[in-house]
Amino acid sequence: MTTSEVPDIVIGRLPIYLRALTLLHEEGHEFTSSQELGQKLGIGSAQIRKDLSFFGEFGKQGTGYEIKYLHDQISKILKVNRDWAVALIGFGALGQAVTNYGGFATKGFYIEAIFDSDPNKIGKTIEGRVIQDIANLVEVITRQKIKVAIIATPVQVAQQVADQLIAVGVQAILNYAPITLTVPSNIQVQYIDPVVHLQRMTYYLT
Amino acid sequence: MTTSEVPDIVIGRLPIYLRALTLLHEEGHEFTSSQELGQKLGIGSAQIRKDLSFFGEFGKQGTGYEIKYLHDQISKILKVNRDWAVALIGFGALGQAVTNYGGFATKGFYIEAIFDSDPNKIGKTIEGRVIQDIANLVEVITRQKIKVAIIATPVQVAQQVADQLIAVGVQAILNYAPITLTVPSNIQVQYIDPVVHLQRMTYYLT
Repeated sequence: MTTSEVPDIVIGRLPIYLRALTLLHEEGHEFTSSQELGQKLGIGSAQIRKDLSFFGEFGKQGTGYEIKYLHDQISKILKVNRDWAVALIGFGALGQAVTNYGGFATKGFYIEAIFDSDPNKIGKTIEGRVIQDIANLVEVITRQKIKVAIIATPVQVAQQVADQLIAVGVQAILNYAPITLTVPSNIQVQYIDPVVHLQRMTYYLT
Repeated sequence: MTTSEVPDIVIGRLPIYLRALTLLHEEGHEFTSSQELGQKLGIGSAQIRKDLSFFGEFGKQGTGYEIKYLHDQISKILKVNRDWAVALIGFGALGQAVTNYGGFATKGFYIEAIFDSDPNKIGKTIEGRVIQDIANLVEVITRQKIKVAIIATPVQVAQQVADQLIAVGVQAILNYAPITLTVPSNIQVQYIDPVVHLQRMTYYLT
C-alpha cells in the first residue's frame, strides 16, 4: 500500500496507537486487543481494526495483538524505527525548552543543528552542539542533508525561515511559532500552539 | 445558536482565525476578506464564510471583514475576551517552560496555582506564586474555583491527577503528559505531544 492510498487522518492516529503500545509494553503487558486500546484512547475498536487493516493483518482471533510486535510494525510504517536528524531554528526560551526536552531523543529525533541570530548565543556549545549563525542555515542543512526541522523563532521571521528550510530540502516542519505557514503541498507541517488548544476549550466552559 | 449545534471542528478553527486576525491587526491592517484569510491559512474561503455564518453576519459585501471587529467577536464566541485562571500541575522542566512562556498571559490565561510533589520545590515562589504541595490540590482548586488546568506531570500520574482535577470542577485540561486521558464526555481535553506530531510527518518522508 502506497502513501497516497491511506487517509491522512489514519496516519495521524498511528502515533497515538504507538504511544499507548509503548506504555503497555513498559508496564509489562504482552498482549492487547482493539477493545482495550479503544477504551484507553476513546476510539472505537472497529476504527482501530480498520486503521490497522490498511497496513496488514497484525492481530489473531482470540489472542489479539502482541504488543511488542504491533509496536515495531507501526514504528516501521511511520519510519520511526530509525533515527532522524533534526534542525532547531531559534534558541530563545522555547528553543531551549525544546533542546532540554528528553522526549525527542528517546523517540529517535536528534537535534543535530541549532541556529540563532543572536551574536551572544552563536558559537556557544549546548550538549555538544555549537549554536550556529542562522546566516549559515542553508549551507549547514544542505551539507547535513537534514529533512526535519523545528521552528522556534519569533513569529515575524517564521515564514521566511520555513521558505529557506524548504528550499534546501527540509520536508517536515514542526512549527512552534504562532502562525500558519504557507508551504507547498508536498511539505509536511505540524503546529504546537498551546494557546490555540486552550482557546478551543474555553468555548465549552460554563 | 447554542454550543451543541456548532460542529467541534468549526470551534477548532476559530482560534486559528483569531490568531491570523491578531497578526493582521498588529501589522496595521484594517480590513480583510475570506479570500485573504483563506490564502494565509490554507483553508477555502467558502469554508471560512460557512464557519463564521454559524455565529452571525460579520462581513460586508465589497469591504469584507473589519479586522478588529471580527477579532473581538471571535474572542467573545470563544470566551477569551476575559481572563482565565489556570492551575499548572507539575513543575519539572516542562512545567517550568510552561510558566516561563509569555504567550499564555498575553492571551488571558493566568497561571494562578502551581503544584508539585517535590519537597525541594514546594514553598518556593515563582513570579509571585508559591509552588504548592500537590496533596493540597483538591482544597486549593476548590477554593479558587479554577476551571482550566495544565498537566505537566510524569506520565505515570497524569490520569490520577486528571481524575482529581475533574472531581473538583476543572472542565478543561491541556495535557502535556504523553498519554491519552480517560475523561467524562463533558470534559474538554487537548494534547501537546511534539513527538506525536513529528511521527505523523516522518511517514511521508522520502
